[in-house]
Amino acid sequence: MKIIIVGGVAGGMSAATRLRRLMEDAEIIVFDKGPFVSFANCGLPFHVSGEIAERSSLLVQTPERLKARFELDVRPETEVLAIDPVKKEVTVRHQEKNYSESYDKLILSPGAKPFVPPMEGLEEANNVFTLRNIPDLDKIMAKLAGVASGNATVIGAGFIGLEMAEALAKKGLSVTIVEKAPHVLPPLDEEMAAFVQAELVANGIRVITGQSAQVFKDQGQSIVLEDGTVLESDITILSVGVQPENDLAKSAGVELGLRGGILVDENYQTSQADIYAVGDAIVVKNQISGQDALISLANPANRQGRQVADVIAGQARKNKGSIGTAIVRAFNMAAASAGLSERVARQTFDDVAVVHTTGNDHAGYYPGATGITMKLVFNPKTGAIYGAQAVGQKGVDKRIDILATAIKAGLTIFDLPELEFTYAPPFGSAKDPVNMIGYAAINLAEGLSNSVQWYELKDELVKGKVLLDVRTAAEVANGRFPDALNIPLDDLRSRLAELDADKEYIVSCHSGLRSYLAERILKQKGFKVANLDGAYSLYNTVRPEEIIHD
Amino acid sequence: MKIIIVGGVAGGMSAATRLRRLMEDAEIIVFDKGPFVSFANCGLPFHVSGEIAERSSLLVQTPERLKARFELDVRPETEVLAIDPVKKEVTVRHQEKNYSESYDKLILSPGAKPFVPPMEGLEEANNVFTLRNIPDLDKIMAKLAGVASGNATVIGAGFIGLEMAEALAKKGLSVTIVEKAPHVLPPLDEEMAAFVQAELVANGIRVITGQSAQVFKDQGQSIVLEDGTVLESDITILSVGVQPENDLAKSAGVELGLRGGILVDENYQTSQADIYAVGDAIVVKNQISGQDALISLANPANRQGRQVADVIAGQARKNKGSIGTAIVRAFNMAAASAGLSERVARQTFDDVAVVHTTGNDHAGYYPGATGITMKLVFNPKTGAIYGAQAVGQKGVDKRIDILATAIKAGLTIFDLPELEFTYAPPFGSAKDPVNMIGYAAINLAEGLSNSVQWYELKDELVKGKVLLDVRTAAEVANGRFPDALNIPLDDLRSRLAELDADKEYIVSCHSGLRSYLAERILKQKGFKVANLDGAYSLYNTVRPEEIIHD
Repeated sequence: MKIIIVGGVAGGMSAATRLRRLMEDAEIIVFDKGPFVSFANCGLPFHVSGEIAERSSLLVQTPERLKARFELDVRPETEVLAIDPVKKEVTVRHQEKNYSESYDKLILSPGAKPFVPPMEGLEEANNVFTLRNIPDLDKIMAKLAGVASGNATVIGAGFIGLEMAEALAKKGLSVTIVEKAPHVLPPLDEEMAAFVQAELVANGIRVITGQSAQVFKDQGQSIVLEDGTVLESDITILSVGVQPENDLAKSAGVELGLRGGILVDENYQTSQADIYAVGDAIVVKNQISGQDALISLANPANRQGRQVADVIAGQARKNKGSIGTAIVRAFNMAAASAGLSERVARQTFDDVAVVHTTGNDHAGYYPGATGITMKLVFNPKTGAIYGAQAVGQKGVDKRIDILATAIKAGLTIFDLPELEFTYAPPFGSAKDPVNMIGYAAINLAEGLSNSVQWYELKDELVKGKVLLDVRTAAEVANGRFPDALNIPLDDLRSRLAELDADKEYIVSCHSGLRSYLAERILKQKGFKVANLDGAYSLYNTVRPEEIIHD
Repeated sequence: MKIIIVGGVAGGMSAATRLRRLMEDAEIIVFDKGPFVSFANCGLPFHVSGEIAERSSLLVQTPERLKARFELDVRPETEVLAIDPVKKEVTVRHQEKNYSESYDKLILSPGAKPFVPPMEGLEEANNVFTLRNIPDLDKIMAKLAGVASGNATVIGAGFIGLEMAEALAKKGLSVTIVEKAPHVLPPLDEEMAAFVQAELVANGIRVITGQSAQVFKDQGQSIVLEDGTVLESDITILSVGVQPENDLAKSAGVELGLRGGILVDENYQTSQADIYAVGDAIVVKNQISGQDALISLANPANRQGRQVADVIAGQARKNKGSIGTAIVRAFNMAAASAGLSERVARQTFDDVAVVHTTGNDHAGYYPGATGITMKLVFNPKTGAIYGAQAVGQKGVDKRIDILATAIKAGLTIFDLPELEFTYAPPFGSAKDPVNMIGYAAINLAEGLSNSVQWYELKDELVKGKVLLDVRTAAEVANGRFPDALNIPLDDLRSRLAELDADKEYIVSCHSGLRSYLAERILKQKGFKVANLDGAYSLYNTVRPEEIIHD
């Protein structure tokens, strides 16, 4: 059998190596239009920052090594120009010469390319870059050699945008991020992204949200935003998203779906016989919503590449879909998510509840513990988990990986307290933050607690509810809500007479634990009361301008 | 309602605080015979080492604070002497005076106490300690003040034994560990524990296995082992296991089960009406084997305490059992496990397979990646996961927590590749070690690979099989199996003629990846071949004495 693979990075190379392990005698040709295959595309920003010191570290494999070990015929700098699905033949171009190769099976793994919106002056700009591959990296590094202390602009505050912003700041540039959405990290919800935004600002990044770049002037040296703001920029990174690389598939008559993604069945088969596709370019099922999705992540791409090899070799494999699990580091903070955000969950499902908790990455009594703020999005009737987000300095990856596993397994909020984790003081806690957010969600689902979200607070107070802050006087002196009543939790039982049984209360503390205790006391004493989810610390992060500092 | 709780640490205090949140008006009394409640018992060894510098850090709560916040009546240094289950009354002793308290509901959370085997001379020894609580810690710290540079002996190489050995070494003592089992960390399998043993030895700990201490001489200054070895010891820690603290339950007529554990039903109800029990003292169901078990871990104890409070407050909760997830740090290494070891799984089930893999804690191209060696124990027919173990410098807790979640959720090996984890270079890999061990297990289950375990190798070679080492010549020069044939993987296809089609081969490389590739090549070329699971690196760790260094 002769198998041709178009695209030699994650999905394509996983398919090629697995195919060899299953079909020792197959002829396997991998075409890639770029000069490198199997490079570490997720590592590119970390070479810009200098953390990955050697460019060569990013070149995980070479055609020579792939030949020696896997007997693969890897042909870089060879673009597949056309596919003839009837003759089962591709036309390719290498060093300005065209030739043809026949195939029995063809796997498309073209990936996704940076989306470049039409912008005035972009054509003339000589300092605007996207980052997808090693040649892109080389261009950026060459440019940076001349602008070591200038201004940098990153347009688009998604995962790559944030990594590039940090990398450029670490190179000594003054960095501005411009994001069209109302907050950085649009895949996360606003209040969780606010922690990341605060970390960026604390590290000297200028963050402009709710604005898009409109015009490039002076070959890109000036960028004019929607509101007329002008940014001087010596180097600009455009990272506003990606789109499926679908030209070849389209020209071969392969059916496309959502936003131009390649349509495949459960076996990665496209609409054309013997043509398969995997990776960032294909439309997948979001396993939580059941809806079509484009997911540009390395984990699914690698899995799909391996699975399509199994399918071609005659093994039973199905693409079950993806949930989308991702993480980004921003200086000393990590932010991660799995599944649906609250925003998407509310668009998708009728019954959606959320809860925020804060816990330590390991036992608080062991040195070095740091806080993790977590959010769970779930169905309060069935307990189904729709998504999870977390931010913090350490242990964020672990908690989201656990919750991603729980989501994949169909566990509900009622199962989270049952999970038994490794615990020794340097590694965890007797009650892990994952257990704790499960308890908190169950308390909501079972009606032991009622919550008010940060974005609901003002309206609720306007309606006449009273905000009761149960922090200590010392904490309140460091920053307080306007117009909150203050009774420290430990005094609450003895000061109940100060409350008005006809009013409705919203309780808050610093991070939500004491306010829940206050809520339970008040509820059992007959008061109408709800808990400000995430409490002061969350509110102060997402709406710092509303907090009073006396 | 008046509720009495016996034991104010994990399970007891979780019950007390949850009860208050559910029953604001209940009278809740917590008796503890020790001077402290709610202390960090898992942190005790880390105060010995000096890592937790302040003893006060271990005292997480005080009766005063528990009174102020939870309106709990906590009575330390008060031993419950007797329970009258008919009158529903306890007799307690405080400061040499006895008194009685009635109850509506009684919760026993007495914990487990160190097992002290009968040993000659132990009574006369003045330097032998167990470690369960703050007074034990104080005695050890007082003794250590006088023996800062002497010899220490730790008898029992379980979790606490290893933590104490490291702590004493960090205090400057010369430490010897004596373990009766054939290897340290008896809950783990031998080859996984071997990595820990090597780390202990590399850090100057003398490790003696397969030996028990028989006689203490000279007030404990000398310890004579089974084989006559005499150890000089200035301080000795006895950590050979724990047993349920069951005297009070027994005297109250509560039925006991496995090894004296308190029997409870799914609602934590003992055989006596209105008496409940939780924590290390109760018999639980191992959720994997379905068998009775005693599990002394903080996570289940805390969950049980909270659940019994729910039960008493009228909520539907059931004890679903435990799987046992644990971790221990040994110097720069962590070792963790969830579920059953291979040893226990083979005693319990008919169809048991195992697989070992090695992977990096994060992307290898990003600086600082370290290896994790993992083991999965599973049913090769159904894919059911029986247990998992891992050792390594970083990321061990995360992988075992994920696998513990997978086990709890009933996921099979076929689900592990489907799990989608956070990936950015500092945090993980596109194919996480958990995904990879899933693939490896599936390859075994589906017959793509056959494996030989390290303990089977010698017998297989005696039967005439040939060991084929596919490492490079340079690797082989650094240490090799006796009598192995060496053909580097990348030369294998061109040197197939050197193999004998009538022989059966066992392939090995360094960590098992290349040997699997070799196995696939050879299998497809018609050879009879199996893969040495874990390969050279595992074998060299568990049987270093058999490796040849030229």
